[in-house]
Amino acid sequence: MTTMRAVVIREPGGVEVLELREVPAPEPGPGELLIKVAATALNRADLLQRRGQYPAPPDAPQEIPGLEYSGVVEAKGRGCALFEVGDRVMGIVGGGAYAEYLTVHERCALKVPRRLELAEAAALPEAFLTAFDALFLQGDLRVGERVLIHAVGSGVGTAAIQLVRRAGALSLGTARSEEKLQRAQRLGLDVPILVEGSKFADRVKAATGKAGADLVLDLVGGGYLEENLKALALRGRQVLVGLTAGATAQLPMGLLLNKRITLKGTVLRSRPLEEKIAVTRAFAHYAGEALESGALIPVIDQVLPIASVREAHSLMERNANFGKLVLTW
Amino acid sequence: MTTMRAVVIREPGGVEVLELREVPAPEPGPGELLIKVAATALNRADLLQRRGQYPAPPDAPQEIPGLEYSGVVEAKGRGCALFEVGDRVMGIVGGGAYAEYLTVHERCALKVPRRLELAEAAALPEAFLTAFDALFLQGDLRVGERVLIHAVGSGVGTAAIQLVRRAGALSLGTARSEEKLQRAQRLGLDVPILVEGSKFADRVKAATGKAGADLVLDLVGGGYLEENLKALALRGRQVLVGLTAGATAQLPMGLLLNKRITLKGTVLRSRPLEEKIAVTRAFAHYAGEALESGALIPVIDQVLPIASVREAHSLMERNANFGKLVLTW
Repeated sequence: MTTMRAVVIREPGGVEVLELREVPAPEPGPGELLIKVAATALNRADLLQRRGQYPAPPDAPQEIPGLEYSGVVEAKGRGCALFEVGDRVMGIVGGGAYAEYLTVHERCALKVPRRLELAEAAALPEAFLTAFDALFLQGDLRVGERVLIHAVGSGVGTAAIQLVRRAGALSLGTARSEEKLQRAQRLGLDVPILVEGSKFADRVKAATGKAGADLVLDLVGGGYLEENLKALALRGRQVLVGLTAGATAQLPMGLLLNKRITLKGTVLRSRPLEEKIAVTRAFAHYAGEALESGALIPVIDQVLPIASVREAHSLMERNANFGKLVLTW
Repeated sequence: MTTMRAVVIREPGGVEVLELREVPAPEPGPGELLIKVAATALNRADLLQRRGQYPAPPDAPQEIPGLEYSGVVEAKGRGCALFEVGDRVMGIVGGGAYAEYLTVHERCALKVPRRLELAEAAALPEAFLTAFDALFLQGDLRVGERVLIHAVGSGVGTAAIQLVRRAGALSLGTARSEEKLQRAQRLGLDVPILVEGSKFADRVKAATGKAGADLVLDLVGGGYLEENLKALALRGRQVLVGLTAGATAQLPMGLLLNKRITLKGTVLRSRPLEEKIAVTRAFAHYAGEALESGALIPVIDQVLPIASVREAHSLMERNANFGKLVLTW
C-alpha cells in the first residue's frame, strides 16, 4: 500500500490538533482521477470541522479536512475521457484536500487557466463555485438587479463582486473594516457599506433609490436576518450560504409575506455527486473564457507552506484575511 | 350620484363595528365591469381589517371589507371584450366585496361554472386562487410530490386538498379536530394528522417513509416554523400564506442550510393589477374544465344573509367553520 502525507485532525479542538502524518494514499476508481495536489485553500468549514462541529459527508475522508485543490493528474481510473495524465486541474471535494493525493470524479474537475500558477488556482474553486451557484443557480440573478453581498472580503465575497459585475448587475457590499471595503472597490464593488453594530438596511435603501436589494448573498446568518429582510425589495430573494454570526434568529414573518420574499438555504459540500458535477460543468461553461482571459481572478491573501497549516487556521479565525489563504505542498 | 348598501367598518374593533350603510356606488372605468354582487365570502383578512390590523391597499375601498364576490355583470366600461351584461362572474378584489356593487378589471373576472349557484360560486375565488398560486406558481408542485397542508378545514385548505389530488401528488393535512380531518378525507385528503400542542413533523416523516414533505402550504405561521422545517424533505419548499398563529418565530438557520430549504412568503391582496390578472387567467386555464365538471368544488360551511355579517365574523373567530362562510344579498 502506498502512503502519502496529509494534515489530519487528531481530535476535535484548537489549531494544535492539526498534524502532518503519513496515511494511506487513495486509488482512483472508475471515472476518477488521481491527483497529485499542488495546493489547497482554507474555508470556514475547515475550522468548524477541526472543532468537531461539521463532520465530513460519508463519501469523504473523515479526518483530513480540505474542500478544494489544484494539482496535476497523476493517474486515471477506467473510463476517464476528459483529462490526460499531466493535465493541470482544480476543483471542489467533500473533504480530504489537505493531502498530497486525492481522487475525484473527472467530471468534477476543472481545467486550470493557462495564466495561473497552481498555487493561485487553488484559491478559485470553492469561492467561485459557491458564489456562482448562489447568485445564478439558486438566486436567479438577472441583468440590472441590485445584489447585497455580505463579507465582501471573504473568498466567496471577492468572487461574488466579480460575478455580479460581469452579469450587468449592481453590487452593494458589507464589511467591518474600511480597508477591506477599499480593496473590494478595486475589484469592482459598486457600493461599499461599513457595518457597525449590525445595521445596513438604511444604507441599502438609500443607495437603491428606496427600492432595496433584489438579491442578498448572505454568508453571515444570525443577527443579519431582520436587516436583510428590511433591505430586500418587493419579491426579493435571499440566499443563505453561511452562518458565521450564528445559526438562529427571529424571523419577522409578516415582512416575509408582505414583501413576498424568498429565503433559500444552500450548501455545496453535502450535495451528491451528480449535483456537484452539474454545478462544476455549469460554471466551466459560464466562466471558462473569463478565467482564461483574466476577467475573473482569484483573490489571495497569503500563500503558506502546508507545514504552516496551524498558522493559516489562526489567521482565518482572527478574520484578518482579504481573500483566500492558500496552502502549498 | 347613485348609492348602494354596503357593510362598512365604523372604526377598528369587534363585530359590533360592522354596519350596513348607504354609500356611493362605484362606476366602471375603461376595461372594467360593474358587477351587481350576489354574494361574498369571509376571509381571515376581513377580521384583521375590522380590528384595524390590515389596512386595504390604496386601490381598494378603505372601509368596506370583502376580498371575493360572485354576481352578474350590470354594465361595462369602455373597451371591455370578455363578458356581456347579464353574465355570471366571480373573482378576487383588494377590498369592497361586502357591497351591492363593485367594479373590477374584466381580466380579473372568472366565469361562474354552469352547475353552481351564485351563492356557491362566492366561496371559490380566494380559496382556489390562493391555493393554486401557492401550490403551483410559488411552490412549483410536481407529480408524485408530498404536500403538507395546514388548517385543512379552512377555505384554502379544502381547495388545496382537491388541487393536490388532481396534480397526482400526495396530501398530508393537519387540523385540531378529528371531525375536520374526517371531512377533509372525504374531499380526498390522503394522510390526516391531528395536531395537539404543535408537533407534527414525526407524523409527516412516518407517513412518507422518512423522506419528509416536498412542499408545505402554511396558513398558520408562528409556532409551526421549526416543525415545518423538520417535516420538510431535502430541498423542500415552504410557502407561507398566512400567520394565524403568530407573525414571528425562531428560524433554525442550520436546518435551512443543511436541508437546502426554500421559504417563500406570499400574499395576493396587495399585488398589482397585472399580477392579479396573471394568477386569475392561469387558474382559469388550469381549472376551467374541472370547475365545469364538478371535479373541483367549493366547500361551504354556511350561507348567511348579509345582515348576519356580525354573526359570520364571530363564527370565523371561533374557528368553528369547515370551508367557507358565504354572505348573500
